[in-house]
Amino acid sequence: MSEFCMATHTAGELRSSDIGQDVVLCGWVWRRRDHGGLIFVDLRDRDGVTQLTFDPDNSGGEAFHTAEAIRPEWPIMVSGTVRARPEDTANPNLPTGEVEVLVHEVVVLNTSKTPPFQIEDGIDTAEDTRLRYRYLDLRRPEMQRNLKLRNDFTFAIRSALHGEDFLEVETPTLAKSTPEGARDFIVPSRIQPGNFYALPQSPQLLKQLLMVGGVERYYQVAKCFRDEDLRADRQPEFTQVDLEMSFVTQDQVMAMVEHVLKEAFSAVGVDFETPLRRIPYWEAMDTYGSDKPDTRYGMHLMDVSDIFKASRFKVFAGAANTEGERVKCINAKGAGAWPRAQIDKLEKVAKTLGAKGLAWIAFREDGSVNSPIVKFFSDDEMDALKARADVEPGDLVMFAACARKEADEILGGMRCHMADALGIEREGHDFLWVVDFPMFEQDKATGRYSAEHHPFTLPVEQDIQLIDSDPLAVGSYTYDFVMDGFEAGGGGLRIHNEELQLKVLERLGFTEEKAREQFGFLLEALSFGAPPMGGFALGLDRVCMLLVGADSIRDVMAFPKTSSGSDLMQGAPSQVSSAQLKDVSLRVD
Amino acid sequence: MSEFCMATHTAGELRSSDIGQDVVLCGWVWRRRDHGGLIFVDLRDRDGVTQLTFDPDNSGGEAFHTAEAIRPEWPIMVSGTVRARPEDTANPNLPTGEVEVLVHEVVVLNTSKTPPFQIEDGIDTAEDTRLRYRYLDLRRPEMQRNLKLRNDFTFAIRSALHGEDFLEVETPTLAKSTPEGARDFIVPSRIQPGNFYALPQSPQLLKQLLMVGGVERYYQVAKCFRDEDLRADRQPEFTQVDLEMSFVTQDQVMAMVEHVLKEAFSAVGVDFETPLRRIPYWEAMDTYGSDKPDTRYGMHLMDVSDIFKASRFKVFAGAANTEGERVKCINAKGAGAWPRAQIDKLEKVAKTLGAKGLAWIAFREDGSVNSPIVKFFSDDEMDALKARADVEPGDLVMFAACARKEADEILGGMRCHMADALGIEREGHDFLWVVDFPMFEQDKATGRYSAEHHPFTLPVEQDIQLIDSDPLAVGSYTYDFVMDGFEAGGGGLRIHNEELQLKVLERLGFTEEKAREQFGFLLEALSFGAPPMGGFALGLDRVCMLLVGADSIRDVMAFPKTSSGSDLMQGAPSQVSSAQLKDVSLRVD
Repeated sequence: MSEFCMATHTAGELRSSDIGQDVVLCGWVWRRRDHGGLIFVDLRDRDGVTQLTFDPDNSGGEAFHTAEAIRPEWPIMVSGTVRARPEDTANPNLPTGEVEVLVHEVVVLNTSKTPPFQIEDGIDTAEDTRLRYRYLDLRRPEMQRNLKLRNDFTFAIRSALHGEDFLEVETPTLAKSTPEGARDFIVPSRIQPGNFYALPQSPQLLKQLLMVGGVERYYQVAKCFRDEDLRADRQPEFTQVDLEMSFVTQDQVMAMVEHVLKEAFSAVGVDFETPLRRIPYWEAMDTYGSDKPDTRYGMHLMDVSDIFKASRFKVFAGAANTEGERVKCINAKGAGAWPRAQIDKLEKVAKTLGAKGLAWIAFREDGSVNSPIVKFFSDDEMDALKARADVEPGDLVMFAACARKEADEILGGMRCHMADALGIEREGHDFLWVVDFPMFEQDKATGRYSAEHHPFTLPVEQDIQLIDSDPLAVGSYTYDFVMDGFEAGGGGLRIHNEELQLKVLERLGFTEEKAREQFGFLLEALSFGAPPMGGFALGLDRVCMLLVGADSIRDVMAFPKTSSGSDLMQGAPSQVSSAQLKDVSLRVD
Repeated sequence: MSEFCMATHTAGELRSSDIGQDVVLCGWVWRRRDHGGLIFVDLRDRDGVTQLTFDPDNSGGEAFHTAEAIRPEWPIMVSGTVRARPEDTANPNLPTGEVEVLVHEVVVLNTSKTPPFQIEDGIDTAEDTRLRYRYLDLRRPEMQRNLKLRNDFTFAIRSALHGEDFLEVETPTLAKSTPEGARDFIVPSRIQPGNFYALPQSPQLLKQLLMVGGVERYYQVAKCFRDEDLRADRQPEFTQVDLEMSFVTQDQVMAMVEHVLKEAFSAVGVDFETPLRRIPYWEAMDTYGSDKPDTRYGMHLMDVSDIFKASRFKVFAGAANTEGERVKCINAKGAGAWPRAQIDKLEKVAKTLGAKGLAWIAFREDGSVNSPIVKFFSDDEMDALKARADVEPGDLVMFAACARKEADEILGGMRCHMADALGIEREGHDFLWVVDFPMFEQDKATGRYSAEHHPFTLPVEQDIQLIDSDPLAVGSYTYDFVMDGFEAGGGGLRIHNEELQLKVLERLGFTEEKAREQFGFLLEALSFGAPPMGGFALGLDRVCMLLVGADSIRDVMAFPKTSSGSDLMQGAPSQVSSAQLKDVSLRVD
């Protein structure tokens, strides 16, 4: 390091083989203790920790004298000699634990006030305090590891894409506002008063235009922005690895993405076999109740409609005999032993998932059955159910009887809830594709159609004729990359034909005039020889969060914002001067 | 390519060695011509051009029939056999010029309207039209090359930094407004009405906070924003390669930057020797009249004050005898032969550079002298000047007599102007450092001090005592990277001590209260053990422009904005709905 740094070594790299060497180290005082007339200092840098020893006899009096004064979090530079630690004081838990540096000289580079929290892993300091003093929080080894993993993963993705002749192209951050989708952040223009840029929600349209522009293989690690109400784990700005290819089929894009992700994950020590498993959308919904299933545990959804076709329990019989409805259940093993009061609380959970109530049967360990509904079941129904759901004592079977997708979503949500509640182990990582999403979904209340992925997705060719007559039956060339039960990425082929794009926009409620007003530049571009294209976007923050095992994406971002959108360290957002507002011809209401 | 693309080869890679192979190519129809009963199509993709031949006898009638219909800019897919071109039709200017593909099958992937301009290099289409149809402009081979060079250069920088253990860390785009420096773009917050984020002008403070946070080596290819009036070659958003290091000296940062830049430039075929030449600020100013000199040509500034100390020409004698002023000149060889009218126009140029007028002497080819001022010169003065300025027939000597820096800047500007006017060859690239900038500069009108680099720059240690008494004499640890006469990058060491930072801010006119209000988070961070640090930022757009030999940074950006800040393709900025304004509690005045 010496050519580029005051230090000759990092605080993480000295080993027994370095004994006898003269070294210079730079870093922060982590811990200091006086013992037997000596002073010991743990010197910390981003690479590790090395024990420094100050010996008034061997170090020279000046260094020892300085060491008496130094305090935690002071940055210092020391020169000294590497020596073996006395055998009984070696620390096998520390990579540098066999050696110490006998300090000859120490330079205090700065002093430090006492930090408001410990610079240690696993602290339980309020997150607001950590964010207010983020520059201290980042010194904690686990935060350093998080930043490093994010860097390593991102660099590996870039290397893989570069190796496949993708060009990284920067698209503008000052873009055009499109009222579709989530809410835009808007940026007033000074030169054009009353007009606004918008920060992009994604580079979707611009990457399609790059394909029209002949770039053929594009990628970008792109900052995206959404002015949404921030749920626990959303950020107003987030990062996606965005890519697009021309002259491709769906299988070709998916193979490329697998290849790139395999290399990137491997670079951070996570390996998987390709091709990844592909689960069609409806299979994922019907089996896991989710289009982003975690398949590391069972508790599959079961269709028991056939069992209850003639049931005296009208709720089940009704659904079992209605076109488009289902009676489905899951079996949460172990929860059948829960006390009644705990089971009763599950109804509340089901209601947050859209259920009207929750039917359940607890099979007690003593062989008894506890349930508000079994009194309506015939013996045959009960036997068939037990066989289908593989019932044992201690099981809790929960039901949903309603429209297919609704039943799937309710039980899918209950499945996740029960996995957490029961503490089901989910070991390793779970990677898969969910494919073949429907093109459209319909809002029950308004009857309006929206795009399941987005309005630029290519419908399956033979279904195009159904866009007018049976839109919900129209499939699309789409694929979501699912990691550990999270939608970690998604993509699809795109429409490259102006007429078809207009047709889809019209199905989504646009008049041609409105479509041209909003997406005129895209429609025009498609008329100038747009090639077949498809692409993908990976949610980088989320993937890094899963890789480091953090609970929040905030832990893999250097300077995240709170749920009210505040940067507590910088104090943003903040008031601006009246001159700044006047510059952009605005007044606060 | 076939695993990831419909094509087996690109349109740029087929050679004689591929003759006999069956291939599939995808791309755009570039040119089409019918000749001797055959149809020839130049197929273009981003990699090159391949000649396709459609032969009604050999191609099958259907392919030939389709080929009759296809038009320029239609994307097509063809399969066929590589064969040698008849010898007299080989094209030695084309890498694929020895072969052609005899097409068996053609699939029209899309049609295209006729583009509004030719998809060719070197078109003279109005730039507004190119920007309006940027997706067509980008298809032109020279634009493809520009995007590829930018990608290759940027990737090489990243690789070099990654290899030196720098971590790429993303800093926020929604940041805090700081009224210092250029004008901010502001972004209204919806959740906190009346408050605003600002888009960052650079990650300067945040990268310093990352150093306080123990990151030690940081970099980012960072988007930066300035809401300035757009001169010919400014963009509201631009990109810089930003880096920062801890525990370093100035020489160590400079050595690292040289190492990284050497690798990156080498990756795009531009090599230079390190260490680069270092020119102190005042030497650059006095010799080239610029702190970003182009040293590929001479025309140095000469100090002739001593010659005119006793001159009858009062303007010169006055400056020559006044503390802090100078009489300086440059010799523009060749311009002495210009007609008087052309020489007279130079005064206008000098006035735009801050001169009150322009004194000059034209030494005519015939030995005569033309000048409005020589009548005041003694023979000795004339002889001394001729010797000092190495005067020959045909030379034009121009003077400035005023304060040192002013004289330097006027003649530095004239030097550049004359180099362009005389068409002086500047071969290859010119890389150097300008170092040792003064810490402060003073506004003549107001007497106020501003920071020559920025307020966070570390003053030279022994000069700190002069901050109050003689601020203009205070040096700083600073270095600008100069390429071909442009400031391509700059950096310095930073203040890592709260007290010194406050002292510098106070010299710049801040009260302590105001300093804490605006930079409180930085000052507080410095009090928690900030390490010594220094860094650098490279103007990526400008460097790429110089590398590809373009006249404007717009030619190395995919979607640049016009001088009024418009994206002509997307139509941004644009009006937003009243609902969007209401969301953020704003009204347009």
